[in-house]
Amino acid sequence: MTAEPFDTVDLIRTKRDGGVLAEAEIDWLIDAYTRGAIAEEQMSALAMAIFFRGLDGTELARWTQAMINTGERLDFSGLSRPTADKHSTGGVGDKITLPLAPLVAACGVAVPQLSGRGLGHTGGTLDKLESIPGWQAKLSNEAMLRQLEDVGAVICAAGAGLAPADAKLYALRDVTGTVESIPLIASSIMSKKIAEGTGALVLDVKVGSGAFMKQPEDARALARTMVELGGAAGVRTVALVTDMSTPLGLTAGNALEVAESVEVLAGGGPADVVELTLALAREMLAAAGRDDQDPADALASGRAMDVWRSMISAQGGDPDAALPTARETEVITAPADGILATLDAYAVGIAAWRLGAGRARKEDPVQAAAGVQLHAKPGDRVTTGQPLITLHTDTPERFGRAREALDGGWSIADASVPERTVIIDRLA
Amino acid sequence: MTAEPFDTVDLIRTKRDGGVLAEAEIDWLIDAYTRGAIAEEQMSALAMAIFFRGLDGTELARWTQAMINTGERLDFSGLSRPTADKHSTGGVGDKITLPLAPLVAACGVAVPQLSGRGLGHTGGTLDKLESIPGWQAKLSNEAMLRQLEDVGAVICAAGAGLAPADAKLYALRDVTGTVESIPLIASSIMSKKIAEGTGALVLDVKVGSGAFMKQPEDARALARTMVELGGAAGVRTVALVTDMSTPLGLTAGNALEVAESVEVLAGGGPADVVELTLALAREMLAAAGRDDQDPADALASGRAMDVWRSMISAQGGDPDAALPTARETEVITAPADGILATLDAYAVGIAAWRLGAGRARKEDPVQAAAGVQLHAKPGDRVTTGQPLITLHTDTPERFGRAREALDGGWSIADASVPERTVIIDRLA
Repeated sequence: MTAEPFDTVDLIRTKRDGGVLAEAEIDWLIDAYTRGAIAEEQMSALAMAIFFRGLDGTELARWTQAMINTGERLDFSGLSRPTADKHSTGGVGDKITLPLAPLVAACGVAVPQLSGRGLGHTGGTLDKLESIPGWQAKLSNEAMLRQLEDVGAVICAAGAGLAPADAKLYALRDVTGTVESIPLIASSIMSKKIAEGTGALVLDVKVGSGAFMKQPEDARALARTMVELGGAAGVRTVALVTDMSTPLGLTAGNALEVAESVEVLAGGGPADVVELTLALAREMLAAAGRDDQDPADALASGRAMDVWRSMISAQGGDPDAALPTARETEVITAPADGILATLDAYAVGIAAWRLGAGRARKEDPVQAAAGVQLHAKPGDRVTTGQPLITLHTDTPERFGRAREALDGGWSIADASVPERTVIIDRLA
Repeated sequence: MTAEPFDTVDLIRTKRDGGVLAEAEIDWLIDAYTRGAIAEEQMSALAMAIFFRGLDGTELARWTQAMINTGERLDFSGLSRPTADKHSTGGVGDKITLPLAPLVAACGVAVPQLSGRGLGHTGGTLDKLESIPGWQAKLSNEAMLRQLEDVGAVICAAGAGLAPADAKLYALRDVTGTVESIPLIASSIMSKKIAEGTGALVLDVKVGSGAFMKQPEDARALARTMVELGGAAGVRTVALVTDMSTPLGLTAGNALEVAESVEVLAGGGPADVVELTLALAREMLAAAGRDDQDPADALASGRAMDVWRSMISAQGGDPDAALPTARETEVITAPADGILATLDAYAVGIAAWRLGAGRARKEDPVQAAAGVQLHAKPGDRVTTGQPLITLHTDTPERFGRAREALDGGWSIADASVPERTVIIDRLA
């Protein structure tokens, strides 16, 4: 310990008292924490000090780079086409990665999408794809590169080799009330995305009840911070701030969302999912230098669906297999005529989670077929007795708590409601 | 874990976001932390959140009581006389407990003084007394009570049974940059003092370069907080805010301070030490309901010295034994004629520490004879070549670093300097 160049308590006090950490101090903090020379209780105190004091732009760029330096970096420069990646901060019914990755690949840009599993009320991309019979999330780096070259799109589990400091720090923040810090969120996301080696990155920063960020100004601040971090690391980065006050599309759940994604790839699907998928695809193509491509055409022509089928098959999945369906369903009907005025994303997310679509702890299993299916979206006219929401689960004892979550989560009004804006802002 | 009534992360977030913790939540936090159900990294994050958000009066009283509830409480109600205790927040040359305890006992009030060892640049009362040949710091509760009844004064090591939550929490705060929080400091001190069972308590809150609190407003805030906590727990509590910009008396070191304390008990000693000892004695006597007693008389008559001799003997010490002297000394002389304008307490404290009087870690030994002896105080006239400071140590290789600590720590001026006020404020 005597060989350590800094004293941890000094550095905690510097940040606590509003000072700025030097680059060498940050490099040491992240490295020493990762190898265990800084105790968990010291790092959690520092994280809480950062929650209150923040990190300035220089500190944050260095912090992120130091996290990247603790692990491996992937290299896609040998591919025959440019790469672009997308990251969403998470929402309810956010299945956009599923149609988006093959769509962008169909336009000539490779999409290496290293994803995670869901925790809490927001679903995980890997959980959704695992509802497809045979599909495997885990790929070696070599298999991932081969699939990127051959198919153009890959959605797989992020290996433990990327920014291992982040995995350790995130687990600590999760149990110490230090998750909600914009610089710590930004560096957590961006360290993995930069280490992943993509040339271009499009961020979908959600805002609203179903999102991590409840206020547009917080979402904008996070978006701005991540765009700056990406730019500083040489990754062309664009962020869209998008609405998560109500779910995306008409489904929240694993197999339910896969089915809806396939509808979008077939040229149908809910308007908001199509709008956001196309908007993100255009951003990814532009960031990768391929704005000559029209993703709407790739969708209409079926080229995106072709890539989807290849992508699923390449990872052992059967794109033609029937998706699992829930053993039990229950329907909530409209109690009056009128306009569906509100349908709260958080309430739907919690209901889907309680039905079995999500997990409370990392090691919990999820039900492939569980979830919530919506029959109307805010602004739609409804009539007394029509189905509003169908609940799906294999374990019917869950219906009660799911219904409780939805209590007060939707409302019917007499008058029309303002039209929803899906894409609220763009930062580049 | 499922049987725990609260979620730690929820409580951390409540405090982090400026909320108030409920009494049941605080009781659980302290109890669960003490029995290991709350992880160190969670408590350190909470401590940092408290650093930023504070604890309100109700929270703090409950927090302190919850810490007391984790351990035993002493009971002095069976004694034939009232009790009063003193606590100093620590300073350089602060040997006041040594003459004060026998002095107050000589006036008919029992003084149960549970003390600690020094860490860093401030000395510890037990370290000082241990320079007396034969003296033992450790007493059983029964022996302490017997000595209180027979002699009237006891200075001994605080057992691990009082507020064990505090020992655990203090050790955590020490390594996580969360020491400097007024509510956490106040509850740490007061939990032990209240558990100790004294009927009256006088606090000496130091302020200045050699003290923990550098600013009078911080010292006042700490004093006010502790007076309120004591009152809420039924302990008559008074605080004096006193100067620690320059050392108390003319010595900083273990045996050196014992010798100076004996001078005070013999009716001599430096004016500031005598002034503060008498002021604190008067406060303790008044708080214990014995303001009919005059401590100046007890000092002049030799009654306080008699109690000192009995107190030292009762713990195995020989009050007539010669105190240890250092193997080596070095003298710093005045480079010019003039008035000693400044003599910085922190510089003297660090010099004494480096000479061997203090310890850097709990397990380090201290030198009984090491320390700093002053030959002038601010305001005194000095002439070129006269001794200003004598350094004492058994290990002469330490002189260089001690001299470095004193560089710039004193100055000689042409004009007179403002007279020092020892007692800055009183809060009751």
